[in-house]
Amino acid sequence: MQLSTIYEPVQEDLNKVGDRLRSVSRVAFLWLSELLGYSLSDGKGIRPALTLLSGKFYDYNLDYLLPMATAVELLHTATLVHDDAIDKSLVRRRRPTINKVWGEDKAVLLGDYLFAKAGELAATTGNLQVIKLSAQTIMTISSGELNQAFNAFNLEQTREDYFQRVSSKTASLFSMATESGAILSQAPEKSIEILKNYGYNLGIAFQIVDDVLDFIGTEEELGKPVGSDLAQGTLTLPAMLLLECYPEENPVKRLFQNRDKQKNIELAIELIRSSSIVQECYGVASDYCSRACHNLSLLPDNASRQSLIQLADYVINRKG
Amino acid sequence: MQLSTIYEPVQEDLNKVGDRLRSVSRVAFLWLSELLGYSLSDGKGIRPALTLLSGKFYDYNLDYLLPMATAVELLHTATLVHDDAIDKSLVRRRRPTINKVWGEDKAVLLGDYLFAKAGELAATTGNLQVIKLSAQTIMTISSGELNQAFNAFNLEQTREDYFQRVSSKTASLFSMATESGAILSQAPEKSIEILKNYGYNLGIAFQIVDDVLDFIGTEEELGKPVGSDLAQGTLTLPAMLLLECYPEENPVKRLFQNRDKQKNIELAIELIRSSSIVQECYGVASDYCSRACHNLSLLPDNASRQSLIQLADYVINRKG
Repeated sequence: MQLSTIYEPVQEDLNKVGDRLRSVSRVAFLWLSELLGYSLSDGKGIRPALTLLSGKFYDYNLDYLLPMATAVELLHTATLVHDDAIDKSLVRRRRPTINKVWGEDKAVLLGDYLFAKAGELAATTGNLQVIKLSAQTIMTISSGELNQAFNAFNLEQTREDYFQRVSSKTASLFSMATESGAILSQAPEKSIEILKNYGYNLGIAFQIVDDVLDFIGTEEELGKPVGSDLAQGTLTLPAMLLLECYPEENPVKRLFQNRDKQKNIELAIELIRSSSIVQECYGVASDYCSRACHNLSLLPDNASRQSLIQLADYVINRKG
Repeated sequence: MQLSTIYEPVQEDLNKVGDRLRSVSRVAFLWLSELLGYSLSDGKGIRPALTLLSGKFYDYNLDYLLPMATAVELLHTATLVHDDAIDKSLVRRRRPTINKVWGEDKAVLLGDYLFAKAGELAATTGNLQVIKLSAQTIMTISSGELNQAFNAFNLEQTREDYFQRVSSKTASLFSMATESGAILSQAPEKSIEILKNYGYNLGIAFQIVDDVLDFIGTEEELGKPVGSDLAQGTLTLPAMLLLECYPEENPVKRLFQNRDKQKNIELAIELIRSSSIVQECYGVASDYCSRACHNLSLLPDNASRQSLIQLADYVINRKG
């Protein structure tokens, strides 16, 4: 199923979020305007869609939902801009990264601006709970990314470490996206919990699939080079399973010990593609999607609920 | 006059801000805890002191003033951590920078965490006006820093450009520090305006003096190398005046044209030290301090008001 079909119940609102994102980049300072315009185009819009869909079950007000959904996308973009600068990544969404075109210094400052703009928009909701949630989510994400940075090229990581990292760096934002939509539409506590839980588990599944695609996708599908995680020294679930399969000697181990980087990345990709590891990872991701959808039936039956279920399916089947 | 004397009316509260800053670094993730502890020690505390002093004129509540003053210091620290990473600076406050010890990637992520923690603390005031002000201040600062980065090694800058940049990157935070203290203590509109104006003008003066000290200070006093601004390609007021004095040929011009970097920095320092440029810059800074204090007499007469006047004096006479 295509995203456009899934987004159908909130497509009109998503267009308005698009308008607001474009208006964010209309600032007097021309360089900043150009950087904002460049960084804010071409997102798939999953996270703002989650806020809008989660906001459609109770008494919602677009005056609050729209700025919040916009803030969620800004916050996501800020993390991407900083991640690319940190990783010195050259390509994202099929285009040169901000750091590649304008330099790492500009990328850091642009990310700061985007984080702050997200904070300002979150504040326009007037809801202290979502304002704090936004700030805490940035704390959680940067803390998760720090954890990843400190553990780069560290072979002594457990699956628990992996899931904790994924939870911090990806699931926290997904769950913030759904929880904030629920809070801003006066959802009862139980429903907020269900939607937050949905976002959290969907986020874990999303990241696991991302980590698998980094091995089995094509550069064309991913919009960035294959094997990026290993190149950065990030041990993801597929690589961990490979280590478990060949505990003595394997390309991930050799790579992390700084031997024949490119050759060992290619070998690892080959081994993972031809093994049952991919299937196993998809199994784990599917479990998380099931957990995500588990209690959705307790929410009011509407088109948004159907979209959330379809989105869980999309997350597993997506190619990039 | 020493800062400790000036801080006297709020010293007890400043100690509590210190306690809160220390508690910010008490997090379970040990690496993060270490980075926070390292980055949050040794500040002079001018900005949180401004919030506390500005908050002492009307009906203040420490439950709001203390988290806000803490947020102000966190926000300031975040900008320093990012600036050092961007400039690849090696020394700050007489110690190796975060990026020097842990790498630029960690510095970027730590800065993000600090910005977000500042946002969370600002949110605990429950005051939407200061929450938005905090976010907008980060937008202004990062926008000013972007401006500086895009204009690095650009000789075609006017004094107006300089003052606009100083206003964005320094004065905005000073004025946010004072304005937020005023807002949180229920100051009447007119008094908020006076204190905001004080912070703004004091911030401009502070930055001009900073820019002069970068030429006339010693590494020991500054806690970082002399001539850093020129090395980064940042055209500050003293360098601009030097360009005006010797429009045809001068070391700043040669340096910006990428010739004999170290030699021309030393020559520029020598020329500026032995000219009337230093005096002229101090004259401009003093004017801003006068403007800062201009309407303070309209505020209630108390020890804090006296401290604000003394602080303006300190800003001009400080050595580092």
